[in-house]
Amino acid sequence: MGSVTSELGGGPVVRVGVLGCGNVGAPLIELISSQGAAIEARTGLRLEVTRVAVRDIAKHRPAAIDTSLLTTDADGIVNDPDIDLVVELIGGIDPARARIHSSLKAGKPVVTGNKELLAKCGAELFQAAEGAGVDLLFEAAVAGGIPIIRPLRESLVGERITRVMGIVNGTTNYILTRMTEAGASYADALAEAQELGYAEADPTADVEGYDAGAKAAIIASIAFGASVVADDVHHEGISGITEVDIDFAKRMGFVIKLLAVAEQTDVGAICVRVHPAMVPLEHPLAAVRESFNAVFVEGAAVGALMFYGRGAGGSPTASAILGDLIDAALNRHKGSHASVGQLATAVLRPLDEVESAYYLNVEVLDRPGVLAQVAGVFGNHAVSIRSMEQEGLGDEARLIFITHRARGAAVQATLADLRALEAVDRIGSVLRVVNDEA
Amino acid sequence: MGSVTSELGGGPVVRVGVLGCGNVGAPLIELISSQGAAIEARTGLRLEVTRVAVRDIAKHRPAAIDTSLLTTDADGIVNDPDIDLVVELIGGIDPARARIHSSLKAGKPVVTGNKELLAKCGAELFQAAEGAGVDLLFEAAVAGGIPIIRPLRESLVGERITRVMGIVNGTTNYILTRMTEAGASYADALAEAQELGYAEADPTADVEGYDAGAKAAIIASIAFGASVVADDVHHEGISGITEVDIDFAKRMGFVIKLLAVAEQTDVGAICVRVHPAMVPLEHPLAAVRESFNAVFVEGAAVGALMFYGRGAGGSPTASAILGDLIDAALNRHKGSHASVGQLATAVLRPLDEVESAYYLNVEVLDRPGVLAQVAGVFGNHAVSIRSMEQEGLGDEARLIFITHRARGAAVQATLADLRALEAVDRIGSVLRVVNDEA
Repeated sequence: MGSVTSELGGGPVVRVGVLGCGNVGAPLIELISSQGAAIEARTGLRLEVTRVAVRDIAKHRPAAIDTSLLTTDADGIVNDPDIDLVVELIGGIDPARARIHSSLKAGKPVVTGNKELLAKCGAELFQAAEGAGVDLLFEAAVAGGIPIIRPLRESLVGERITRVMGIVNGTTNYILTRMTEAGASYADALAEAQELGYAEADPTADVEGYDAGAKAAIIASIAFGASVVADDVHHEGISGITEVDIDFAKRMGFVIKLLAVAEQTDVGAICVRVHPAMVPLEHPLAAVRESFNAVFVEGAAVGALMFYGRGAGGSPTASAILGDLIDAALNRHKGSHASVGQLATAVLRPLDEVESAYYLNVEVLDRPGVLAQVAGVFGNHAVSIRSMEQEGLGDEARLIFITHRARGAAVQATLADLRALEAVDRIGSVLRVVNDEA
Repeated sequence: MGSVTSELGGGPVVRVGVLGCGNVGAPLIELISSQGAAIEARTGLRLEVTRVAVRDIAKHRPAAIDTSLLTTDADGIVNDPDIDLVVELIGGIDPARARIHSSLKAGKPVVTGNKELLAKCGAELFQAAEGAGVDLLFEAAVAGGIPIIRPLRESLVGERITRVMGIVNGTTNYILTRMTEAGASYADALAEAQELGYAEADPTADVEGYDAGAKAAIIASIAFGASVVADDVHHEGISGITEVDIDFAKRMGFVIKLLAVAEQTDVGAICVRVHPAMVPLEHPLAAVRESFNAVFVEGAAVGALMFYGRGAGGSPTASAILGDLIDAALNRHKGSHASVGQLATAVLRPLDEVESAYYLNVEVLDRPGVLAQVAGVFGNHAVSIRSMEQEGLGDEARLIFITHRARGAAVQATLADLRALEAVDRIGSVLRVVNDEA
């Protein structure tokens, strides 16, 4: 192992350089220190944090971390021959991308939780790691502390996975939980999430599904072995969900969740999307409350699996980074590394072709013949109605439809024709329904 | 790699010998065949089932498996230098134990789902694998198709795990679900489970917690790195659960589940037990219905995690075996292997010392002063009552107590004194309560 590992009293030492010391870096360094003896007892390896790159040394107090380890020279860590392994926690595309490439090129395994980067340049980085013959591990990039990437890469590598549905954004799950359980409006639940620090001042990335979309792209890449990037993911957010939708969901035995869905149909085509959906109360995802995350995996042989836990937060994310760090250290010591394999080019299936059951909330004028007219539009596009509920609203009426499975294109055509009807005042939420057929 | 792998057109071939071709072996062999190309594309390795040992060749039909692979000579497979890897699916202690030892000694990695054997001789077998420098993998031994052993061994190896609570027996979960959701009696729910093939004619191993106990021993060994065997596990079954208990659970916001619990207290001592417990409806384990399994893990840094899926059945179990098989094949190809590490001697904490909240169902004579007398007994042993409900039963009354956390010894002493009271007619179920304090 050359200068990489050396005997210093106990087992071989693995010298770790950490890029970034914020929300995740600080608890990671604490964990490595508090768990060091236990890790050495289990694995025979001693993890030693050798240098930590930060933007501003003055900001870091000695109580949290030994300030002598701190440097502002991140490139110095990447190029230091005395550092065996790099943890990238700076986030974003640049300069994280270049630093990961440099580390891999220098033969240093990299552990990262950078979902934005992986969802944009995953295939390129996996190839670089494979070329260098070292690990690039990223459990923390999807669903924080929940082991999902490793099970997909290893336990389920022989499984034909048909679909993955994840609640992978804690902010939106918190908002939807408050709307469901406390009857809060979307605006109030969002404000509450912001007060608690779950949502940012500009909540767009969370509530419009971009954060979940990046995770969906990574999940799809690993589950199906094909390169899917964030731009391939169709997004619908939760900002249009109303109390009416929440109430109808409850009444009909559903709960509304924002789902990241990666699906591989029998023809080998992949569809990756983020949207709110009606989830039946007896489905395991329905019980995932507040800011918790869960990933539901369906495989041909294994059936249904679900992985549940904390999808964010410094300490759970640091735990995921640490698991990867130990794995990479062990692999390096054995002269081995894990591989994602060559990602194929993804054949993306347009949403128009994808089938789902739907919930539609249609406001119409309350007069004779309207229901027949509306039902006729569904029939014209061969969209079969499973159930309908009507609710009076003074001069108007609200019609809530649940359809059988129908192609996206047929539902869009139905909506266009409904909007053209004089008797249709407004079309509210249109949500997919997770059911046994799907 | 010598004769171990050879180029036959595509990637290196890994020759697999399978011991046993029943419920799990048959779907495993089918999976290897149907998923072979996908596995080779992902890993570069070709899995080839070379020989399959069965007890009676005449019983196996050509439709299910190529009969030319079949042999009754299991030892021949173990000793065949042309076989690289052994899958043990014969179950039980002997001759599985000797065959695994012989395989490891011959340098063949072993994949097994044999919970009985691992819960009795795990430490010995792990040591043999470590000594031989090959894999002994056993994901299928706990919770069937659910990846739990690999996450514990790898993802969470740096995590200080405090407690694992599992619903790891599908038969009892099915029975309890039917009692809860359909109002069935224990006897009727058991009969139904037997009709469906979930329960055996003699259901003792399931309903008295022995099956769950073996899994709890394996989970504890891996989670805490200490050797725990089945005999170390305290058992209480579900055969005493009544409709009264089920009804009170519902009324108070709980559901009764049979839990396998492995706990490590701050003093480093381990307690492993199987018992029915009151689980709050908002706890993720409460939503695990029918024959599904789930393992809930609590770690100091990662917080709460849950792994959910099919805990039994040929196809899900075969999926877990296949995941291990691919891992072992890859490791063998790289000249590497996974390690459980040296298991420490477990310091087992007696149940008397373990704290829990409790549910107690006490039938008393319905006359003045009895409640004060009963409450006095709780007070004498410093068992604090959190809530009490009283229900009239003609001349008698039923008192349902939920206590705050109390030591097992104090609760046992309370029960002994209650039984000695003339006004106490009968003590029904005494169940632990999972709560926020615990």
